[in-house]
Amino acid sequence: MAKMRANVFQGKNTIRVEEVERPRAGMGEAVIRVTLTTICGTDLHIVRGEYPVKPGLIIGHEPVGVIEELGAGVSGYAVGMRVLVGAITPCGQCRACLSGQLSQCGHGEGYEAIGGWRFGNTINGAQAEYLLVPHAQANLAKIPDELTDEQVVLLADIASTGFGGAESGSIKIGDAVVVFAQGPIGLCATAGAKLMGASFIIGIDGDENRLAMARRMGADVVLDYRDVDVVAEVQRLTGGGADVAIEALGTQATFESALRSLRPGGTLSSLGVYSGKLQIPYEAFAAGIGDHRIVTTLCPGGKERMRRLMEVVRHGRVDLTPLLTHTFSLDQITEAYDLFGERMDGVLKVAIKP
Amino acid sequence: MAKMRANVFQGKNTIRVEEVERPRAGMGEAVIRVTLTTICGTDLHIVRGEYPVKPGLIIGHEPVGVIEELGAGVSGYAVGMRVLVGAITPCGQCRACLSGQLSQCGHGEGYEAIGGWRFGNTINGAQAEYLLVPHAQANLAKIPDELTDEQVVLLADIASTGFGGAESGSIKIGDAVVVFAQGPIGLCATAGAKLMGASFIIGIDGDENRLAMARRMGADVVLDYRDVDVVAEVQRLTGGGADVAIEALGTQATFESALRSLRPGGTLSSLGVYSGKLQIPYEAFAAGIGDHRIVTTLCPGGKERMRRLMEVVRHGRVDLTPLLTHTFSLDQITEAYDLFGERMDGVLKVAIKP
Amino acid sequence: MAKMRANVFQGKNTIRVEEVERPRAGMGEAVIRVTLTTICGTDLHIVRGEYPVKPGLIIGHEPVGVIEELGAGVSGYAVGMRVLVGAITPCGQCRACLSGQLSQCGHGEGYEAIGGWRFGNTINGAQAEYLLVPHAQANLAKIPDELTDEQVVLLADIASTGFGGAESGSIKIGDAVVVFAQGPIGLCATAGAKLMGASFIIGIDGDENRLAMARRMGADVVLDYRDVDVVAEVQRLTGGGADVAIEALGTQATFESALRSLRPGGTLSSLGVYSGKLQIPYEAFAAGIGDHRIVTTLCPGGKERMRRLMEVVRHGRVDLTPLLTHTFSLDQITEAYDLFGERMDGVLKVAIKP
Amino acid sequence: MAKMRANVFQGKNTIRVEEVERPRAGMGEAVIRVTLTTICGTDLHIVRGEYPVKPGLIIGHEPVGVIEELGAGVSGYAVGMRVLVGAITPCGQCRACLSGQLSQCGHGEGYEAIGGWRFGNTINGAQAEYLLVPHAQANLAKIPDELTDEQVVLLADIASTGFGGAESGSIKIGDAVVVFAQGPIGLCATAGAKLMGASFIIGIDGDENRLAMARRMGADVVLDYRDVDVVAEVQRLTGGGADVAIEALGTQATFESALRSLRPGGTLSSLGVYSGKLQIPYEAFAAGIGDHRIVTTLCPGGKERMRRLMEVVRHGRVDLTPLLTHTFSLDQITEAYDLFGERMDGVLKVAIKP
Repeated sequence: MAKMRANVFQGKNTIRVEEVERPRAGMGEAVIRVTLTTICGTDLHIVRGEYPVKPGLIIGHEPVGVIEELGAGVSGYAVGMRVLVGAITPCGQCRACLSGQLSQCGHGEGYEAIGGWRFGNTINGAQAEYLLVPHAQANLAKIPDELTDEQVVLLADIASTGFGGAESGSIKIGDAVVVFAQGPIGLCATAGAKLMGASFIIGIDGDENRLAMARRMGADVVLDYRDVDVVAEVQRLTGGGADVAIEALGTQATFESALRSLRPGGTLSSLGVYSGKLQIPYEAFAAGIGDHRIVTTLCPGGKERMRRLMEVVRHGRVDLTPLLTHTFSLDQITEAYDLFGERMDGVLKVAIKP
Repeated sequence: MAKMRANVFQGKNTIRVEEVERPRAGMGEAVIRVTLTTICGTDLHIVRGEYPVKPGLIIGHEPVGVIEELGAGVSGYAVGMRVLVGAITPCGQCRACLSGQLSQCGHGEGYEAIGGWRFGNTINGAQAEYLLVPHAQANLAKIPDELTDEQVVLLADIASTGFGGAESGSIKIGDAVVVFAQGPIGLCATAGAKLMGASFIIGIDGDENRLAMARRMGADVVLDYRDVDVVAEVQRLTGGGADVAIEALGTQATFESALRSLRPGGTLSSLGVYSGKLQIPYEAFAAGIGDHRIVTTLCPGGKERMRRLMEVVRHGRVDLTPLLTHTFSLDQITEAYDLFGERMDGVLKVAIKP
Repeated sequence: MAKMRANVFQGKNTIRVEEVERPRAGMGEAVIRVTLTTICGTDLHIVRGEYPVKPGLIIGHEPVGVIEELGAGVSGYAVGMRVLVGAITPCGQCRACLSGQLSQCGHGEGYEAIGGWRFGNTINGAQAEYLLVPHAQANLAKIPDELTDEQVVLLADIASTGFGGAESGSIKIGDAVVVFAQGPIGLCATAGAKLMGASFIIGIDGDENRLAMARRMGADVVLDYRDVDVVAEVQRLTGGGADVAIEALGTQATFESALRSLRPGGTLSSLGVYSGKLQIPYEAFAAGIGDHRIVTTLCPGGKERMRRLMEVVRHGRVDLTPLLTHTFSLDQITEAYDLFGERMDGVLKVAIKP
Repeated sequence: MAKMRANVFQGKNTIRVEEVERPRAGMGEAVIRVTLTTICGTDLHIVRGEYPVKPGLIIGHEPVGVIEELGAGVSGYAVGMRVLVGAITPCGQCRACLSGQLSQCGHGEGYEAIGGWRFGNTINGAQAEYLLVPHAQANLAKIPDELTDEQVVLLADIASTGFGGAESGSIKIGDAVVVFAQGPIGLCATAGAKLMGASFIIGIDGDENRLAMARRMGADVVLDYRDVDVVAEVQRLTGGGADVAIEALGTQATFESALRSLRPGGTLSSLGVYSGKLQIPYEAFAAGIGDHRIVTTLCPGGKERMRRLMEVVRHGRVDLTPLLTHTFSLDQITEAYDLFGERMDGVLKVAIKP
């Protein structure tokens, strides 16, 4: 039986690169040889035991690779093709998918929240030499020749999520937008707001490095929450509140500040993953009658989403490679987790090359 | 100086019908002789001191009447015309109004939340013999001859709000909808869900009288929260969660149950006016990544909204007169407040005839 | 090799019920034993040679049946289940489907217009004892026990299309809507407009029988184009033009009248299949700057669409059985085509029982 | 009586700068001293007798100026303020405006198509020393100090229209867009498509100068219709058709090519003003069942629209000054019309300084 190396979750606070069985493609599936992947903040939550997955699982959900094997029923592809696969792998054929809610994919009669997130969650993930891709017909996106792996790997999750935050916020030409937290997702949300025609973008964080990158990704003004009352400042700069506030961290503080930064009738587009209690201060919400909207977004996936995002990169609309600050081999992945987890050395995203 | 009788807020827990000065129409304004009005739950909050307005204010915001005087610059109307005026009176010419957010109307450079709500809030209201209508050009809606005052008075606020909850929830043909609380607003939300093509509507309350009325307004199933675990029952009846949940009370319990009743990707349309802390249980919210939406709505106003709602009634789509359970004269209005406040005698809405 | 009887297109003006090979289910496919089907206007176009299909093709695209065989990879179903399959059978996994445009489904890299319409067009259809269903996972919709075949068969095409015309028109509560032509599709569009909250619906046709049925399906007023200038009358009845006009025939006359019936900023929702030249009279179009919209719709398909429409019927929102005016066996199908084609005996739709 | 100089339409093919009476501000109106204006293609149609206006009318509808006089009831402004006024001046208070269709503004009970276009159409226009602004409260947009007249004058019409074409087309991140004709409106549509996140923009024209400017405004590829079969080339470059095609000329040829350039389910956003017959080739339209949309847009107006567009310019998202290729005084305006009408000397837009 063929083997491969993979980063296996052992249990709280322990991951280890091990030899494991190489996957084979069943009907409707594909196996890709992973050429580039990365580590997501969600992977940190898993390793820290904050998000439960089964010990023994290979983690990671951002794969670029080359098709190694195609299962029965997958057409229009060939072994050797270079592909990008989104973090979310919708089946396209269930009730959720046929309703256009691909991220909430669930095969059965009922629905299962965030059912479209499988890699490194309910099935083996991308931090490995080989990856089994379910629903391959709906999820293998060919990479145009002129794009490198590095140019597309961040589209699998953070760009799709960050842009999704801008899209769910229904940003319009001329909007004033504020983005709370300028980590990888927030930086992509900033870029997404710019892409959609926001006329004025305020980026907020407490890390100078990230604020500098926020400017590069499209923020007109950056605010350090350690220095200013960001809500008051957003209200002042926008003349009465932002049209859209994007939350990209997942804390009470950022959620609440985002809400308080809105004009009446504004939209809070929330991308963060929350734990514990989340409060809506009723006065910040105009007691519920301010015509506010709160929208949430799980990373849109599927091959068409990936194709579209690659077109955005291919035509030079966005360049995410500055976010890939460090590179490691798969065998060095524990180091990479340490660096990424501790936010050392100005790290934003790490490239992992199996 | 001409006088009139009006219900004047005196301070916490005190209202009194008094002789006060009759209003005169300035530029862009109109005065109507009120022929029918009603009492809203919001008026109760005011009287109880839960929502602050200035003592000396005439309260009430649901007017039907006859044009008595037209100020300069108001055209297309004549003294003697019978009109309905919405609870919310947008100017049509400010930043909010020109953005289509009429309820958040605010004249100045900045915005003022719920700025479109003036009657019985920032200016004198409708529980009086005469009423001064600001921005009359945008707010006087002629009543078709074939409709009685009773048929249209509830359109000014509760129908516009209740239907608005269904509209903000973007209900589609085939949706399963649950409406939490079947007071006047909730009953109209139920009727609104029916109007928009919801295939299955569940009405929830703890009052048998109201549950019976919910059926009449369009609920397919009604649940008494005193008898069943409503969240579990909604999940069961809908096969995995409602597409849209409408909250029509303004409490933590109804808000939270509405959220828990949703399918992944569902919409919580909130109509209630909240006070105190409001919590979003993170697990009910799929930790923020369930593609949920929470939308809030303040009663849509303006003459075009009123015209449209009157068309709905005129063509027999909805009949709200069963909600008008009692009738009082203006001089009996304190009795009417007592009955309405104590929910005695199966009261839903009271008609007040000045 | 097992045989079955089926209605086979022989070439222009000739169809014949023949013994042909019974289909077998391949991977991802299913075979159903057809228990009820019907004849569509499109089938007439095919038989008359107005829409080209290959001789030898079994025609028909509105199937109700019982699962006979399930191919590999189809899960959640069992032989013997009663199912409804939409006229359009999206794969769920191509670029069009993943973009939410299920009717324009196309497997390849490029798109193929109306690619989702396969039955009786590019593959064998439903006027047969057995039917091969492609992309079965996305297209088999279980029929609730309480619904009969007759209650659901018209959902496969005409109700999905007719309601789709109302949906594409974005009908809102309070809209005035006019529906041009009250054949089966137009009658369903009328019902769809009612379902979505149109306050006033005008049905137009030249057949008294159909105008009577239009009233039953929700029209408030019906106009016979032989008696009145329908455009002028719509303009008069709506006080300046309909918000939405639905075209349900596919002729220059109905298209043009629909456009002329609109208010500025109104929407023409076109359902007809046009042949020959179609003109937009520029003055009816305000020379192109009247903020008009023209939208077209091909029958929405897929199992979720069918599930939703069955819910609409199950909860009594719409009853389409009055449209099934005649019943024939498969062997009598040529008679049925004659009756349907000649519009004899007040026929609207015929039930075909294999 | 105070006098002023103005460009007065005398009748077909004759305009003349004359001394006329200076306007005074009535209730709800304002008078501005015009500091910059321009000539629009529509003005050419008027002068050529192709669009009828009354002789004696001052033409022009793109004003930048300084408030000279404020009528009663206009608040929040002061004499001496620098303002931009849109080409379309909605009242904000009629049925159309309160429905959000500001360009179709009509005061009366009924609607009047393109009723919001008043300047140089139904009332005196901007090619004059002074201009009377109706509905001033809704239409005076203060210009930020840091912006020059030249930076904002093109927002009044061509940018609002061009961007409007992109907005009505509902352009999304990743869309492939083609813009037919790269005159001033088309160039702004190109810029608008870029602003909204189109990943790939094709600009089409037959003038090299304009194609070069199209690249500067955001086109990735430009095609000269004299050299290539543009429909085939768009189909090839987009891999099956554009998501959105914008028509910015108003001819059968551009309309038809735009339609033929679309993928199934694509949107044709039409900005042109058509005269004579307009045909929809049925096969380009998939016989009416390709899920195509055709949307039209009249320049959005009102002060909030102008404020938003000025924010776009202020934050450097778009620079339209390269389109202002020539400058003339009001007294030289006949020369300016000649140059603009003949498209001499690479002219795109001319600045007129009264």
